[in-house]
Amino acid sequence: MNNEFAQRRHLIGAGLENREIDAMLVTSPASVRYLTGFNGSNGAVLALPGEAIFFTDPRYAIQSRREVSCRTQVCKDPILPTVAGILAARRIRRLGFEPAHLSYAGFDVLRANMPVNASLEPVSGWLEAHRMLKSESEIELIRRSVATNSKAFEWAAGRVRPGMCERDLAAEIDHRMRRLGAEKPSFETIVAAGERSALPHAHPTSAVLKSRQLVLIDMGAFQDGYASDMTRMLFLGEPGAPVKRLYRAVLEAQLAAIDAVRPGVTTTHVDRQARNVLKAYKLERAFVHSTGHGLGLEIHELPRIGMKDKTPLAAGMAITIEPGVYLDGVGGIRIEDTVVVTPSGCEVLTPTSKELRVL
Amino acid sequence: MNNEFAQRRHLIGAGLENREIDAMLVTSPASVRYLTGFNGSNGAVLALPGEAIFFTDPRYAIQSRREVSCRTQVCKDPILPTVAGILAARRIRRLGFEPAHLSYAGFDVLRANMPVNASLEPVSGWLEAHRMLKSESEIELIRRSVATNSKAFEWAAGRVRPGMCERDLAAEIDHRMRRLGAEKPSFETIVAAGERSALPHAHPTSAVLKSRQLVLIDMGAFQDGYASDMTRMLFLGEPGAPVKRLYRAVLEAQLAAIDAVRPGVTTTHVDRQARNVLKAYKLERAFVHSTGHGLGLEIHELPRIGMKDKTPLAAGMAITIEPGVYLDGVGGIRIEDTVVVTPSGCEVLTPTSKELRVL
Repeated sequence: MNNEFAQRRHLIGAGLENREIDAMLVTSPASVRYLTGFNGSNGAVLALPGEAIFFTDPRYAIQSRREVSCRTQVCKDPILPTVAGILAARRIRRLGFEPAHLSYAGFDVLRANMPVNASLEPVSGWLEAHRMLKSESEIELIRRSVATNSKAFEWAAGRVRPGMCERDLAAEIDHRMRRLGAEKPSFETIVAAGERSALPHAHPTSAVLKSRQLVLIDMGAFQDGYASDMTRMLFLGEPGAPVKRLYRAVLEAQLAAIDAVRPGVTTTHVDRQARNVLKAYKLERAFVHSTGHGLGLEIHELPRIGMKDKTPLAAGMAITIEPGVYLDGVGGIRIEDTVVVTPSGCEVLTPTSKELRVL
Repeated sequence: MNNEFAQRRHLIGAGLENREIDAMLVTSPASVRYLTGFNGSNGAVLALPGEAIFFTDPRYAIQSRREVSCRTQVCKDPILPTVAGILAARRIRRLGFEPAHLSYAGFDVLRANMPVNASLEPVSGWLEAHRMLKSESEIELIRRSVATNSKAFEWAAGRVRPGMCERDLAAEIDHRMRRLGAEKPSFETIVAAGERSALPHAHPTSAVLKSRQLVLIDMGAFQDGYASDMTRMLFLGEPGAPVKRLYRAVLEAQLAAIDAVRPGVTTTHVDRQARNVLKAYKLERAFVHSTGHGLGLEIHELPRIGMKDKTPLAAGMAITIEPGVYLDGVGGIRIEDTVVVTPSGCEVLTPTSKELRVL
């Protein structure tokens, strides 16, 4: 991978002139990892034409020597004043920074320590735009993360019994994921039973799984840095007609959205396909979030697949497709896969069956 | 707890005038939770004199009705423009914000949407200063988190065998913590064997635990929102004299620092006690981080216990004491407890024995 990291740094260095900046300061941990492979909590990259400097603190001195192939500066004092101090020596007049990932306080420290003739230029979404298009090696890592996640789900689904609580089932899922090779869950695993499944981001509780209940499981792994994301529904006992109808509506919406995924199509078009199906079922007002999101080094990346997002899809994008309906006091249903855009359409990476699991 | 949340909001509302602001916008997730109990990823609090408004998005509409007792506004569009829009109606001229927790982009959105006669005032560390002094109910929650964490450690220490890999041991620890009532680890559990123990923030790998090796375990729980933090060392086999000497040095340093903890003493004084002991062993250069940190709703809170930090300790502060020495190519040793400052000194909450565990 060291070669791939160097290529990415090179691309940023080569793009500076077009953005009318002399250097770019990258501070978001995922983009720092994207450019260097560094997997610690405190690092920054200063990208210059033909060169990049990585900054970290002494806690990561040994680790960064093993992970990072570009020039590295281990700062005993805070990183940002050190970066600002370099600008004069390098004659950097226009420093680009990531406005969504630099705090106002960080901006203020840079400004206070910079040469008077230098300026700070907010550059939004540049690194994110690069990261949106995955390389083959990245897609392979996402595929492995998806495989681990689905194996952990199958293992857990086979062990669900009435009387288990949400929290214990979530703990079993996370543990299995880890044993299968994941570093950690890519977000807090959701196990939501009965009415609680109507909370799109439910925290698992001590609520006990009962028969004749929907159970929503939304889970993902981080493995070798890359995320997966999947939601599946279980039903304890034989579901009645209303649950079957809701499930069918969401499944049709999900399949319609997946069917629309191909290069050139906009994300809003994909979102609309899911929404149109739910509208036909008079459920569009119960679908309170967007249809999906990109994922990679973070669980939420570009593009967003929502009503207002008009990004044209392109081969190499990795996204989720996850429509859902949520009825307060009744319950919720969501079905979610991880999907990669291919030159001719898309590939659903998630191997797990999408039937409602009746246990 | 609802009463305690209301009291906290009241204190912020009552402190506005002293800070020469008309309202305070709180955006850091831990401080939002501190003021409301809200446990989701997207929320903000606008504190006004005698009133507070909580903002979130539709994903959290149901959850926030259950968790949040103050007035709540569920925003379909991004939260910050909505907040800015309220300023005119409320005649707010000076809006305080958290510079370390608002991104430059967020600052820019507020500025662009605010009335022209309103100003944004950075207010640093105010919420953090309140959070630094824990209430009795908070200390009780930390105590429970510490107890869970120590139980999980004992369970895991009894199951360590040569041939296990770091990652599997970390997974067992995290799983046991969850089964004992934790929501999740309060940071990525560190299991670092042999030379890898010299990386202060090592990620657990597939490296196998071998006999005659040091194993560093640094672990903490989040339980009911509150963090615990502990580091202990294992040795597989009988340690030689050099390891015993290193261990004794770190233990003496840790005990000296704990001995210094009492109200009125500065954090730098506590740090110096640990450093002085290591200096006597000629190990001060191998101690590459600070002696400790506050913890609570976050794993790292104020105060910092380091060379440059001169906060006077006060009863109710919850801190870690965790000196360590790290020798590249050899290994590292760290010993860490969670400690609460009491009116007469301190209480070490961590019940786990500090002898080097020889397995």
